[in-house]
Parts: sequence; structure tokens; C-alpha cells
Amino acid sequence: KHADLVTTTEVHKGLKGVLVDNTAVCEIDDVNSLLRYRGYDITELIAQTSFEEIVYLLLWGELPTAGQRKDIEQQLEDGRRLPAEVVKIIQLLPRETTPMAALRTAISALGCFEGSLDLATPKLRAAAVRLTAQVPTILNTFMAHRRGHQPAEPLRGHRHSENVLHLLAGRAPDPDESRAMDGVLAIHADHEFNASCFSARVTVSTLSDLHSAITSGVGTLSGSLHGGANERVLELVEKLGTPEAVEPFIEQAIGRKEKISGFGQRGCRYEDPRALILRGMAEELASKTNNTKQFEMFIRLNEIMRKRTTLWPNVDFYSASVLNSLGVPTDIFTPVFVCSRIVGWSAHVIEQVESNVIIRPKGLYNGHAYRPIPDRRS
Amino acid sequence: KHADLVTTTEVHKGLKGVLVDNTAVCEIDDVNSLLRYRGYDITELIAQTSFEEIVYLLLWGELPTAGQRKDIEQQLEDGRRLPAEVVKIIQLLPRETTPMAALRTAISALGCFEGSLDLATPKLRAAAVRLTAQVPTILNTFMAHRRGHQPAEPLRGHRHSENVLHLLAGRAPDPDESRAMDGVLAIHADHEFNASCFSARVTVSTLSDLHSAITSGVGTLSGSLHGGANERVLELVEKLGTPEAVEPFIEQAIGRKEKISGFGQRGCRYEDPRALILRGMAEELASKTNNTKQFEMFIRLNEIMRKRTTLWPNVDFYSASVLNSLGVPTDIFTPVFVCSRIVGWSAHVIEQVESNVIIRPKGLYNGHAYRPIPDRRS
Repeated sequence: KHADLVTTTEVHKGLKGVLVDNTAVCEIDDVNSLLRYRGYDITELIAQTSFEEIVYLLLWGELPTAGQRKDIEQQLEDGRRLPAEVVKIIQLLPRETTPMAALRTAISALGCFEGSLDLATPKLRAAAVRLTAQVPTILNTFMAHRRGHQPAEPLRGHRHSENVLHLLAGRAPDPDESRAMDGVLAIHADHEFNASCFSARVTVSTLSDLHSAITSGVGTLSGSLHGGANERVLELVEKLGTPEAVEPFIEQAIGRKEKISGFGQRGCRYEDPRALILRGMAEELASKTNNTKQFEMFIRLNEIMRKRTTLWPNVDFYSASVLNSLGVPTDIFTPVFVCSRIVGWSAHVIEQVESNVIIRPKGLYNGHAYRPIPDRRS
Repeated sequence: KHADLVTTTEVHKGLKGVLVDNTAVCEIDDVNSLLRYRGYDITELIAQTSFEEIVYLLLWGELPTAGQRKDIEQQLEDGRRLPAEVVKIIQLLPRETTPMAALRTAISALGCFEGSLDLATPKLRAAAVRLTAQVPTILNTFMAHRRGHQPAEPLRGHRHSENVLHLLAGRAPDPDESRAMDGVLAIHADHEFNASCFSARVTVSTLSDLHSAITSGVGTLSGSLHGGANERVLELVEKLGTPEAVEPFIEQAIGRKEKISGFGQRGCRYEDPRALILRGMAEELASKTNNTKQFEMFIRLNEIMRKRTTLWPNVDFYSASVLNSLGVPTDIFTPVFVCSRIVGWSAHVIEQVESNVIIRPKGLYNGHAYRPIPDRRS
């Protein structure tokens, strides 16, 4: 079957629509805005579970019992601190480094402190939980460094979402804010074979190691065609400034056929239920944090886009409002995505290793035919 | 055309034989042991060009004129030093870190010092040449660190291969040794869409940046299914110790159907001409460096494998002998591969960016169907 393919000249540029492997991690149906982790609907998961349970679900395949949930909470608690050398490494980076480049470097460095590389599933799960715990600490260390401060201590005895808010936004624990961050983290935890997940799988398909794979994932997510949509939403809201500026801007953008970040999703026919949940959270949080003026900008953008186009807001749109109300700096929105997606990447790494074939495609040569080496003395 | 594919359930695991893009960098014909860079035969390139010219050829697409060659030599000369912070970062890594993990971390860190990310081809070429110059310096810094020494200064006014030998093996410049290292570097400079090259292309397909892409490539190459074959060849030679031990070992290995590193290549029918060239260099260097006893082990392995199997030695086999005679430590063989392949990866990054489509395949879901969230209070 494969032998036939070698003789074809059909080039699958971008691998669009090509099935590269079986997967049991998540099921996506863009048309019906359906997203399920291990068979559980994302909307139900957001309503009924914590991020800790989603970590367990994605890595172990089942929701945890009460005892297993306590274990994973303890593992996260124990995993948050960084080796002192990694703190120093982060503090040696230029302050103007992008947070994603700092994160990529720190995760690669952490790999050097992991000792022997073991691809057995229990070891991979433990390393993935530790890395999930460490990412917010890395980001806090870098954010403190660029402001010339000392890093904060992680909170003990608190939920992961509370630690994310403490370390990334300096927030004291608060049930509403924690629930909103849980929702943001849950929504972004996996999205199947997108570019970053695929690069992690390609990297580990040579039987390298988890930290190499996650480092590849972070580097891949740092590109503008993948991460950063919610950062661009907030930049737009801040640039426009007042509700009156929204309609003329959108008319112009439509005239110039420009894409507006935060709207539309490949083939999506209905309003994404996740976007609806995030909208509710965004409204609540805006009111709670005196951010209603900005929230009105989001509502206005949503209204005008519905009036002028057929596009619905996607998960990036209201997550921008939620993260802003929670005090997360705009250039940390994509790193928050990593705080969450690192779990999905790790689940895919485990799946790849458990049924591994090295991922090694071919190219179709369209360059020079044989040519002799010319005289180059002149 | 692509729409049809989404509805198929054919899974291309490992992407074996799938053409993922057009490419003009190199042409491979495993059956006839043919390898051409930009239309030039590798055997002719080894005989007539320096590594500097191959850097230019792969990145610019043509062999350089005398003036262009001087320019690229100067760019390499100017690029060898590392920022002081990156030296410190390398020195903060545990001494037992694998050289590939140290390299991955240092390249990621260098990306933080590159300032604004620009994917225009001239900027990518300049950054790729600088990174090619820096890799041997990174390795020297790490190798000195793990022995508790200070790093060496790069040589000024010398060829790149002489610097590689100086920095990785402490060798004084020598024309024969430099020519052999040129050969090893030339042979490994590109090999089309293997896993490491592909991961670099996936990473930059989101419009990330060169250093993210190369970091992915290094992580991917660090796996045992990709890099390290020549390291395993030397370990075997050292383990066997005497020519008498070779035949019984190979008989046993054949009996157990074990693969022997350094022999065979997918579908290869003839002796690889590159392996023949390397064999000649290996013999010369062994004699010059009083390493003939070990070289006889290679000859014996080759003989017995030819007698007992249909396999030919591949490029990894005699490159192990060459690198050992040149004084390169065994665990630095794969990093030498990076010194060379970084050029091919960079050429592929440029090709990807110049005609970019984000690389985002799909998976075939084979996990749980929808299930409601269970009660987990117990």
C-alpha cells in the first residue's frame, strides 16, 4: 500500500486532511463545534471538573477517583519548584526576550536536569505532570526577571488554577477567578493533530524524550499562524478604544478582506458552546473586576461582526476578555495556552511512544538535474 | 482533492512514502546510492569543494564564486563567538547532561539573543550561517564545562573544518585531517525530509523562527531511531576488542536477528560511493594517527558482514573510524552530525517559509464514544 505512494507525484502540502495516525485523546467536529476529551464533552467537563481532573483524564485516559485526584493534586504541588540553575538560566536571558522563547529555553534546560531518559508510560506521565506544574513557575520567574524583581513562591495547598493566577497575575485565591481560569485551561488542553502537537509527535517518534518533544511544541506554537489569536483580539480592543470606533473599523476590514482575530473557525456552522460559556465568565469577571467598559467593547465587536458577517466568535475571543479581567498581561496569553496544552501534547507523546513508527515523509524533488561542478577560480 | 482525503480512513502512519512538499535542496536515490545537493553529486562535491562552499550551495542554491566564498568564510569567522550569557547558561547545566540536550538548550537560548524575528530569506541565511559557526563553539563550551575546564578560543584565519577539529578534539590545523572532516561534514549536510528536517519544517510552518525550528531539529535527531548510528558502531568496535571476537559476535547477532549499526540502508543495492571515500580516509588517518589496530577491527567487521550477509557498510560505518582517529569523543559524533546537518535544516526552513502552508494533519479517532461524566465522589 505504501509502496504505491512512493511512485505517485501527489504532494500533500500542509498535510491538509491527511490522517497521520489513530488517536484516542480527543475527538473534534468543527462543523458542530464538538470537542470531547477521551469521550467526555468539553462543556460538561468545564461545568463539572477541575483542571487537575482534566490532567489526569488526558494522561491516564479516565477521570480520577477521589483518591487519584488527591494524588495528582499532590504531584502538582510537589512539582512546582524549579532547580536553582534553571532559575539562573532564565535570569540570564535578555529582558526583551519573548515569553515563548524564554519558555522554550527553560523547558529544554529542565530536560537536562531530568537525568536518564525513560519512555515508559508511568515515567512519561510523572514527567508530564511535573512539567505541567513547572510551566507557571517558569513564566513567573521570567516575568519577575524582566521587571527586575525576585520570583514569587508558589502557593501551597491551593488549586493549580489559583497558582496560575498567583504566578502569572499576582492574584490572591478567589473561587470565581479560579473557576474562570479552570475553564480557560480546560478549553485549550487538547486539539488533536494541530501543528504544535504534530511537531511534538514527530520529535518523540525518533524515541528522543518528553522535554525535546514539548520544546518542539512550544517553538511551533510560537508562530503567528498558530498561537496568539487572543493576544491580537485584546490588542485590537485596546487600539479601537471606544465602542463607536468598532463599526467603521470592521467595515474597512471587510472592504480590505482582512481576517479579524477571534472570529470564525474552519467549517464552523453554529456558535461554539465553549465561546458561550467563556462569554458568561467574561461578563461576570468584568463586572467583578471593574472591567465592564472594556467588556462592552467585546460585546460591540461581537454584535457588529454578527451584523456584517456570518462568523461567530471562537474560543479565542472571550478568553481574551477573561484573561484581561484576571490581570494576565497580554503577551502572557499564549503562554497560558501552553500551561494548558502541555497536557494534551504530553498525552499525544505517550500515545505516539506506545505505538511508535518514526515519522519520516518524502519530498518531491523539483530542483536542478545533475550538473557537473564548474570552474570557480575566478 | 483534499476534501476527499478527510473522508477516507486510510491512516498514513509514519508518513512512509507520503510526499509532503516539493523540494529543490537535495535529491536522494537510495537504491543507486545517489545523493545530490542542488544538482551536484556528493562524491564530486567531496573531491572538489570545501564545507564553506557547501554551506553557500545549500543556503543560496548555487556554488559560490571566489568572492562569495571569501564572504561566507568571513561570516563564519565573525559568527563563532557566543554571547557571554549563553556561555554561562551552558555552564549551569549538569555535567552529565547529554551533549545533544545541551546543544538543544544553547541553540534555544541563542534565539533569545537574536532580537526581532525576521523570516525574510537574506536574514534567515545570515542567521543560519551564524548558527552554523556557533554550534562547534557551543559544543566546546559544554565539553570544557563537563571536564571542569575553561572553553577554548576559536582559531582565527582557519577553515571551518579546522575549527571543528580544534574545538571538538583539540587538534592543531592539519590539511589531511581538515580534508577528512570536510568529507564527514559534506556527507551529512542534508538528507531531505527525514524526521529532524521535517520537525524543523513543521515548527517554522507556523511562521515561528529559525532558532525554534533548529531547536526542534536537534531534539528530534537526539532520538535513537535517527542519530547515533556511528556512536553505536564505535561502541561495538570497542566492546569486541580483538579481530577474533568479530565473527562469533556477528554469527550470534544474525542468529538473534539483531540489526548491526553501520550496515545496510533502506533499499540500497550497491556499495555506497560515500562509504568507499570514507573508508579511504579512515585508512589514511588510522595510519597517520597510530590507530591501525582499531582500523583493522573495522575491516574485519566489514569482511565478515559481506561474507555472512548481503549488507554493505553505510556512511555511518567508516565515519565512526574517521571521527575516532581524529580524536572526537564518541558521544560527540551525533553533535558533529548537527555541525553539518544544521545547514540542510536551515535550507529547508528557507524553502518552507518561501512557499509556506502550515503543516497540520489530522488523526483518525479510535477512542471512547460520547460518555456522560460519572459520579466521582467516592
